[in-house]
Amino acid sequence: MKLHGYWRSGTSYRTRIALNLKGLAYDYVPVNLLTGAHREDAYAALNPQKLVPALELEDGTILTQSMAIIEYLEEIHPRPALLPVDPVRRAQARAAAQVVACDIHPIQNLRVLKYVKGELGADESAKNAWAAHWIVEGFTVLERLAAARSTAFLFGEAPGYVECTLVPQMYSARRFGVDLDPFPALVAVDEACAALDAFKAAAPEAQPDAQ
Amino acid sequence: MKLHGYWRSGTSYRTRIALNLKGLAYDYVPVNLLTGAHREDAYAALNPQKLVPALELEDGTILTQSMAIIEYLEEIHPRPALLPVDPVRRAQARAAAQVVACDIHPIQNLRVLKYVKGELGADESAKNAWAAHWIVEGFTVLERLAAARSTAFLFGEAPGYVECTLVPQMYSARRFGVDLDPFPALVAVDEACAALDAFKAAAPEAQPDAQ
Repeated sequence: MKLHGYWRSGTSYRTRIALNLKGLAYDYVPVNLLTGAHREDAYAALNPQKLVPALELEDGTILTQSMAIIEYLEEIHPRPALLPVDPVRRAQARAAAQVVACDIHPIQNLRVLKYVKGELGADESAKNAWAAHWIVEGFTVLERLAAARSTAFLFGEAPGYVECTLVPQMYSARRFGVDLDPFPALVAVDEACAALDAFKAAAPEAQPDAQ
Repeated sequence: MKLHGYWRSGTSYRTRIALNLKGLAYDYVPVNLLTGAHREDAYAALNPQKLVPALELEDGTILTQSMAIIEYLEEIHPRPALLPVDPVRRAQARAAAQVVACDIHPIQNLRVLKYVKGELGADESAKNAWAAHWIVEGFTVLERLAAARSTAFLFGEAPGYVECTLVPQMYSARRFGVDLDPFPALVAVDEACAALDAFKAAAPEAQPDAQ
């Protein structure tokens, strides 16, 4: 498999974590978002949406959308499981991950921040406040969930679906200067993840295109 | 079951469609987003994220996040299936739905538009241009997919996962005055859905809280 991604893209980062947690080997193909490589013909032919990541399967099939890719990996390579077994717990784990995937990340990713600064004329400070606002809203809910956990990670003794999205969002929060003091449980889960090889190898700074 | 939602909320709308497609009975409990009922204690106790929808199961368990709820319904009530059987097709259907659920809807929902108008000071015209921009970006990708379909709906002869998200987004696009002429295949799929009882009963105007 080939994973087309960008070192600092949160959605690429979460897909790398999932692949590593499953123990699946893949080649990493950098797509430079800053130079616009994702809008060039070569990448647009792979993914007409011109967003990263894209997972290229052995037979050339292209899968897009990080959360759809992670569900695919869970179906094809069920062990180790990233989702709980019980349907209600599965729904709760998916919901927690979607706080990041639907309610935080999409509003503060690169293309949206560009529009906020460009078309809406926000200055650097207003742009960072915008990003921080949505991160804090979502983290406030996730902190309650993390603080109430009875296991090392949010849905068990091993990291899974939620941690795939949480850890990249914590990385992004630090970039935007979000004060993480109000989120001690999330910081603890993030630190527990950071100690694991699957997360170390997925980290932005560990990628060949890190600058 | 009880579905706590709001007539015009796209995420409530998509959950109603899924419940109806599955043939599941539910009581609808309106939560008025305009008067801030979702931020009051009664609703916040159900869903600390203070967003709609929330699905209350028979035993009182609360499920949140529309896409997690739909996955739950698919697991618990597998027939009729909303997702294809083949894992790659399932991933493609989820990815198409996520174009709406992750890349369009979150950027143009009520709370984000309020921030764009309030904190960022956009006027009505700039706010509508913002919403339209993200809708057109996502629809451009979905139109290619819909135009290439060989079945009545995007992933088969019956509507499913993708149509649950597409139809509410088409409704929203019309509200924001998006020109749908460039999206004839999406319009055709939307019309085919509108003829079905499951979609008629889920429509915003058919809800008791419609104004």
